[in-house]
Amino acid sequence: MYKYGLSVKFKSTEDNRQKLSSVLLKASELVSRAKGCQLYLVSLDEDEPDTVWTTEIWDSREDHENSLSVIGVKELISQASCLFAAPPEKVKEIKILGGYGINP
Amino acid sequence: MYKYGLSVKFKSTEDNRQKLSSVLLKASELVSRAKGCQLYLVSLDEDEPDTVWTTEIWDSREDHENSLSVIGVKELISQASCLFAAPPEKVKEIKILGGYGINP
Repeated sequence: MYKYGLSVKFKSTEDNRQKLSSVLLKASELVSRAKGCQLYLVSLDEDEPDTVWTTEIWDSREDHENSLSVIGVKELISQASCLFAAPPEKVKEIKILGGYGINP
Repeated sequence: MYKYGLSVKFKSTEDNRQKLSSVLLKASELVSRAKGCQLYLVSLDEDEPDTVWTTEIWDSREDHENSLSVIGVKELISQASCLFAAPPEKVKEIKILGGYGINP
């Protein structure tokens, strides 16, 4: 089965990008223990102020969906949501054929 | 220092997506041995026919640039180029703050 990849764009309220990044980095610690999580990175794009990106790879889309039930994740989303200038946007979903850097 | 992340879009000539994917999967084997390569994935987006994506993470942008000098990579690019319907496009470059799934 193909691995599932996902990029999500988070737009923060003005000057809150750093706070939002910190919350998402905490989220990465939690979801790293979730079933099927292979990658959960928190990144910035220099061309986009007040924006944070996550890059996620999961063994399956279902594993991604189930990650919301990891203990503490809902609380973190709630913390993050007051920093959102817009709802998080799934910008890209991909089917991973293979390559280097994740477990087969 | 921040890790460097990169998404590249490859548009294949009609019906050559699978061939192009195979070449890029071979490229992933070569660059996996390059200095600083942490991730090199080859993926499809179901919404985009005749398109293949790579998702790359490198310890630095310089490591990415140097990967072109890995033995065999130029030959593979040459093989791939006759399958391109358009020049490969760097769609996204990111600075990775942290997270799960790569080496610090």
